[in-house]
Amino acid sequence: MKIAYLGLGLMGQAMAVNLAKAGLEVVGWNRTPGKPGEAALMAAGGKVENSIEAAVKDAAVVFTCLGDIGDVEQVLTGKGGVVDFAMAGVVIADFSTIGPEAAKRIYDALRAKSMHFLDAPVTGGDVGARNGTLTIMVGGDEEPFRKALFALEKMGKNIKHCGPSGSGQALKLCNQILCAVNMISVCEAFRLAEQLGVDENLLVDVLSGGAGGSWALSNLGPRIIKKDFEPGFALKHMLKDLRLVFENIDGQDDLLPGTKLAQDLFKIVGEGDGSDSGGADGARGTQAMRLAYK
Amino acid sequence: MKIAYLGLGLMGQAMAVNLAKAGLEVVGWNRTPGKPGEAALMAAGGKVENSIEAAVKDAAVVFTCLGDIGDVEQVLTGKGGVVDFAMAGVVIADFSTIGPEAAKRIYDALRAKSMHFLDAPVTGGDVGARNGTLTIMVGGDEEPFRKALFALEKMGKNIKHCGPSGSGQALKLCNQILCAVNMISVCEAFRLAEQLGVDENLLVDVLSGGAGGSWALSNLGPRIIKKDFEPGFALKHMLKDLRLVFENIDGQDDLLPGTKLAQDLFKIVGEGDGSDSGGADGARGTQAMRLAYK
Repeated sequence: MKIAYLGLGLMGQAMAVNLAKAGLEVVGWNRTPGKPGEAALMAAGGKVENSIEAAVKDAAVVFTCLGDIGDVEQVLTGKGGVVDFAMAGVVIADFSTIGPEAAKRIYDALRAKSMHFLDAPVTGGDVGARNGTLTIMVGGDEEPFRKALFALEKMGKNIKHCGPSGSGQALKLCNQILCAVNMISVCEAFRLAEQLGVDENLLVDVLSGGAGGSWALSNLGPRIIKKDFEPGFALKHMLKDLRLVFENIDGQDDLLPGTKLAQDLFKIVGEGDGSDSGGADGARGTQAMRLAYK
Repeated sequence: MKIAYLGLGLMGQAMAVNLAKAGLEVVGWNRTPGKPGEAALMAAGGKVENSIEAAVKDAAVVFTCLGDIGDVEQVLTGKGGVVDFAMAGVVIADFSTIGPEAAKRIYDALRAKSMHFLDAPVTGGDVGARNGTLTIMVGGDEEPFRKALFALEKMGKNIKHCGPSGSGQALKLCNQILCAVNMISVCEAFRLAEQLGVDENLLVDVLSGGAGGSWALSNLGPRIIKKDFEPGFALKHMLKDLRLVFENIDGQDDLLPGTKLAQDLFKIVGEGDGSDSGGADGARGTQAMRLAYK
């Protein structure tokens, strides 16, 4: 059974490689040819095609991991996209974070061609993608979810069917709120510690096991202390995700003042940093947010 | 060796009872006589006196658990306070959250009378106080800390000497930032879930183990879902603690915009609620914060 994987970036290639390593027939495609992802997939036993048509023809399952709404719609439902070449009955699952509204739009467009669409955004970062330990939040119909499960299980550990089309995306946006706002709490705790002369090791050692504890404190705190600011997740992606949050509630900023604050701070970080690869999920974003406060 | 415990409120009585149950000689005192804390301490084998003088006379260690700065200063260094009756060399440890500046002031005043002062704020709530599992963050000189440790160990599990006078208080304020801002993240994730029609159980089930996870999500999330809004920590205390944060950085609000936002939201909660006992560390504060957004 042929599986197509479209989008062999940092996340996509790691996920496609896990499919190939599990012995599944994987055919990859990347918008920009000649990237390392293609070589990685071939080394793991997969194939690479140079057109969407060749990649998705006769595929029973198509996975995509692309980026923003425009990219996903172009590749899936745009002219010359998957919709033009995949077979009826195909299950298409997209791992990008694009928000529930776009997911439902794609679901409708594909259903009109008898194709099944699952929104399946992930968390766990590049490490989770490499280790096959991603959390995959799936929205869409249950039957195609069950059909795709054998392959999803090669890429993730915690795979959850969340409800109808868009609900995987909706839950992912909730997750991004948690990540973004918890980073504010960690940044400000470190900042207060600095102001008051507290040994910053105590924040992690003493506070992470208590009511102030969080993944962000336990995982980013030690990196902040060691000044290890290697990005774990691109700042531009976090900004995109927070933009999607507000787009999907029709711009009602006042409903989510903490999330709005995080967005404002990350924007300042993006401007001040001059780069678009600062870590938001990782510690570099945390550092950058701290700098942004100054 | 006589131990005095001044302040037999919800936290204080539970801690004093644990001392008495451990077989130590405990003499309690409460500002307002006839409260349940006195009976609880006596039932556990402790004594109760009706004056500070009688309680602290000949005590080797004096503990206080009172409230705000004014209360602690009145009982410790005010006229007719501990300073007038305790013996030279006594070790006095205060569990109230009063911020590092007030702690250092008290430390200096008591040192002038050859008395040792430790700031020793706690986290873990009334449950931790009853179970003797509090985290106790101690600032002050090391020798008196070592002298008081045998008794602190009866009340807490994670007892940490954080540095010179005030550093226990400073770390506690960092903890309160983490608690307060993480509650914003949980409130807003639930609010977005509501807006987007996400099953709120998924927030806890799927997201709490990932990068958005926190004590607040794991512990308050299930209570929010069950609509169990019993307070775990008084709103007025959280407001006091956040006030102390800003007082101790000379009102530089812009250094901590997330904390400032939490303070603003909790204030609205306090006004809207009409009561001063809403839970801040507990789920009721979370509910109240959600209401405050409306």
